[in-house]
Amino acid sequence: MTEFLIQYVEKRKKSWKVKPEMFFGEKFHDCLLLKFGKPRTAVFAHLDTIGFTARYEDQLVPIGGPEADVGTSLVGNDRLGPIFCKIKESEEVIRHDFPRAIERGTRLSFEQNIRIDGEFIKAAYLDNRLGIYNCLKICEEITDGWIVFSTYEEHGGGSMPFLLNFIQATAPISQALISDITWITEGICHHQGVVISLRDKMIPRKKFLDRIVALAEQSGVRFQLEVEGIGGSDGREVQHSPYAIDWCFIGAAEDNVHSPNEIVSLADIDAMVALYLYLMAHL
Amino acid sequence: MTEFLIQYVEKRKKSWKVKPEMFFGEKFHDCLLLKFGKPRTAVFAHLDTIGFTARYEDQLVPIGGPEADVGTSLVGNDRLGPIFCKIKESEEVIRHDFPRAIERGTRLSFEQNIRIDGEFIKAAYLDNRLGIYNCLKICEEITDGWIVFSTYEEHGGGSMPFLLNFIQATAPISQALISDITWITEGICHHQGVVISLRDKMIPRKKFLDRIVALAEQSGVRFQLEVEGIGGSDGREVQHSPYAIDWCFIGAAEDNVHSPNEIVSLADIDAMVALYLYLMAHL
Amino acid sequence: MTEFLIQYVEKRKKSWKVKPEMFFGEKFHDCLLLKFGKPRTAVFAHLDTIGFTARYEDQLVPIGGPEADVGTSLVGNDRLGPIFCKIKESEEVIRHDFPRAIERGTRLSFEQNIRIDGEFIKAAYLDNRLGIYNCLKICEEITDGWIVFSTYEEHGGGSMPFLLNFIQATAPISQALISDITWITEGICHHQGVVISLRDKMIPRKKFLDRIVALAEQSGVRFQLEVEGIGGSDGREVQHSPYAIDWCFIGAAEDNVHSPNEIVSLADIDAMVALYLYLMAHL
Repeated sequence: MTEFLIQYVEKRKKSWKVKPEMFFGEKFHDCLLLKFGKPRTAVFAHLDTIGFTARYEDQLVPIGGPEADVGTSLVGNDRLGPIFCKIKESEEVIRHDFPRAIERGTRLSFEQNIRIDGEFIKAAYLDNRLGIYNCLKICEEITDGWIVFSTYEEHGGGSMPFLLNFIQATAPISQALISDITWITEGICHHQGVVISLRDKMIPRKKFLDRIVALAEQSGVRFQLEVEGIGGSDGREVQHSPYAIDWCFIGAAEDNVHSPNEIVSLADIDAMVALYLYLMAHL
Repeated sequence: MTEFLIQYVEKRKKSWKVKPEMFFGEKFHDCLLLKFGKPRTAVFAHLDTIGFTARYEDQLVPIGGPEADVGTSLVGNDRLGPIFCKIKESEEVIRHDFPRAIERGTRLSFEQNIRIDGEFIKAAYLDNRLGIYNCLKICEEITDGWIVFSTYEEHGGGSMPFLLNFIQATAPISQALISDITWITEGICHHQGVVISLRDKMIPRKKFLDRIVALAEQSGVRFQLEVEGIGGSDGREVQHSPYAIDWCFIGAAEDNVHSPNEIVSLADIDAMVALYLYLMAHL
Repeated sequence: MTEFLIQYVEKRKKSWKVKPEMFFGEKFHDCLLLKFGKPRTAVFAHLDTIGFTARYEDQLVPIGGPEADVGTSLVGNDRLGPIFCKIKESEEVIRHDFPRAIERGTRLSFEQNIRIDGEFIKAAYLDNRLGIYNCLKICEEITDGWIVFSTYEEHGGGSMPFLLNFIQATAPISQALISDITWITEGICHHQGVVISLRDKMIPRKKFLDRIVALAEQSGVRFQLEVEGIGGSDGREVQHSPYAIDWCFIGAAEDNVHSPNEIVSLADIDAMVALYLYLMAHL
C-alpha cells in the first residue's frame, strides 16, 4: 500500500493545486506524510489490511477484527509459494483448509472482489481504502494541511504517536480529521450523506464538534450525525497524545463491516470528499 | 466548570498567600493550570461531569460510568430548549422518557440536589467537585506547587499527557498528588479520615508511598490506607507519561458512587484539606 | 533487584569487553540503564516480582498475574516482622492464612525454591530473572547497545515511556529487543531453542521480523518461531512510544507460567544468550 501511494503521489502531484512535501522511508516505518502549504489541520487515513496470521496446526490468529465465517476465501504467500484457502472452522479456534502447513507468521487477507453498480461499491477493505481515496481526492484541491497515511489503526495502534511527534516538530496543527469508514446502524443509513461522528468509545471536545457541525451545515453537503458508545479510530491516539489537538471522525458508513463484502453508497463517498474539501478550506 | 474556576481564581487570588500564574485558553482546551512559586509537586483535580449522550430512538450512551437506575432525573439543553427527563429503561440499552426526540449528541447530567447536615454532604458530582474544592482551599495557603484542573479523567483520559508536557517544559515536577474522591468499602469508612490509596488498578512506587505515609503520620491528620485491585485516576496517566514522576491518590471516600446521591463525611473533607496542606509544605 | 544489579555491574564491568556508562537513581526511579559504545539497538529486561498486596480481612490483591493456587507459600515483611503464610482461599477473593492481620499494602511474593538438574531450571520468577541473566551475560561481550532494566512490565506498564524518552535524548536507537520469557504451547517446546515471537497481542513490523529471522538463520543458533494472539511485553510500550522504533520479543520458553514452579530448558537459555550476542553484533 505504502509503495503504491508513494508512486501515485509522485506521478499525480504535478497536476495538484499545491505540490506537497513528502515524508516517508525507514524513519517513518511504513507511513507516508504529505505537507501542503501551512497546515492548520491534519487528515489521517490508515493503510491497514486486516486478516489473519498463520499459527500452528492450521490455526489462524486475527489481525484487527476480521469477520471469520466458515468458507471465507483467504490469500497470501509464504516461501513455498502462493496460498489460496478457505476458513474451515471458526468456533474456539479459527482454522484454514490449505492442504499443506503454512509457514508460521504468514499473513493472509480476504480475497478481493470489487463490485460496483450505479449506487454502491461492494468489496473487501473499503475500510479504509475509501478513507485513502478520500485523501487522494482532496490532495488535488487543498492548499494547506497535512495528509497522513498511518498504520496499526486496526491492531493496537502505535504509529500515530511518532507521526504526531514529527508533525508537531515540523509544522504543528491543533485540529485533526479522521478519514475512515464507519457503520450502518439504526441511526445511520446508506445514501443519507457522510457521517460526522459525535462520539465513539472516545468523546471529542464539544467546542470542536460544534464548529464542525456548523461548518457542515454551511457547506450544503449532505451529512448524518452519529452517536456510538463503542468503536475507535486514530482519533483515540490524537486524544491521548501529549498535544492539545482537537479531533473528529468523518467518513461514509458501510454495512458488512470487516468482511469481504463491505458495502458503501457512492453518493456518501462523494459527500465525504465534498465535506472534507469544505472543512480543509474553512476550519 | 472551567469558566467558573477562572472567574473564581481571578476574584480570590488577591487574598491568597502566593498569587499564582494562570494558564488557560484554547491552547489548553478546557483545562486550567495554576503555578505557585517554585513547584516540586503538582496536584491534579478533574473537572468531569459524568452523564449520558443522547443517541437515536430515545437511547442514552454513558459518559464515564454513571449509575443508570430507572427513574433517575436527568437535565440538559438542545437547540429546541431545556430538557428534563427520567431514565425509563436500563437493561440492554438505556432510554429516556422525554416526550420529544432529543438532538443527537446532546449531553445530559444528573439533576443536582445538594443536601448538607452536620455530618455529611450528599449530592451528585461530589466526585470530583470535592477534589476541586480541596484544590481551591489549599490555593489559599500554599507557596509552591502546581494546581491543575484536568478533563477526561472519567472517560478515556487524554488531557493529562498535554498538561504534563506543558508542566515539564515550564516548571518541572517529580511528584504528583491526585485530588479525587474514592469509595467506601469494607476497609474504608466514613469519618475515619482522608484516604491514602496504596494502590488501585495501578500501583504507585513503594518508596513514594512510604514517604507519604510517614509524612501523614507526622501531620497528625486522621487518615486511612486503601488497597484496591480495580479503579483508576489521573495517576494512571502520570505513570504512563514519558516523565519519571511519582504519584499518589489522596482523597475523601464516598458512598453511592457515581449516582445523584454521592455522600461524603464533612470531617473527611476537612482531613483531606489538612493533609494536602501538610504534604505540599513537606514533600 | 535494582541494588543487586548496580552492585553486580560495578563489580564485574572491569572484565567486560566494553565498560558501559551507568544511569540510575531517583531520576530513573527503580530502573537501571547501561550504555555500551554507540548503540543501534536497545535490549530491555524487566525487574518485576509478581505477587500480592495485602488488603483488608486477610484478602490479597494480585500484582501482575500470579497463579494463586490454594496452598501456595508466600513470604514478605511488614513493620511487625517477617511473614510466612499460605494461600487458603482462591475463589472470588484470595485470602491468606497468616494468624495475624498483615499491614495494609504489604507486598508478598512466592517463596523461592530453585531446582536445577542437567536439563532444566525450576524456580519462581524465571520470568524474568532469566531475561536479566541473559542481559548480564551479553554485557560481557557486546561493544554497542543499550541494556535496560525496566519496571512495571507485569503490572500496567509505565517506566518504558520515560526510559525511551531518556534513551532517545541521550543515544537514540531504532531497534529494540525484549529479553523476556515466553510460554510452552502446542507449537513451542522445551529444548527446541530460543523463541523468536512473530507476534503476541501486538504485531511487530514485518520488515524487522524478516531481518531478525534471516539473521537467526545465519547465526546457526537453534530457534523456534512463535505466533500468539494474546500476551504482551515491554514491546507494546516501544510500539506505542512517540519514536519509530522496531521491536521483537526473543527469549526462552517456560512451563508453569507465573507460578513458583516455572521451568525452562538450560539449552534454550544458552541459545537465548547466543542469539542475542549474534543479533547485537549484526543488527
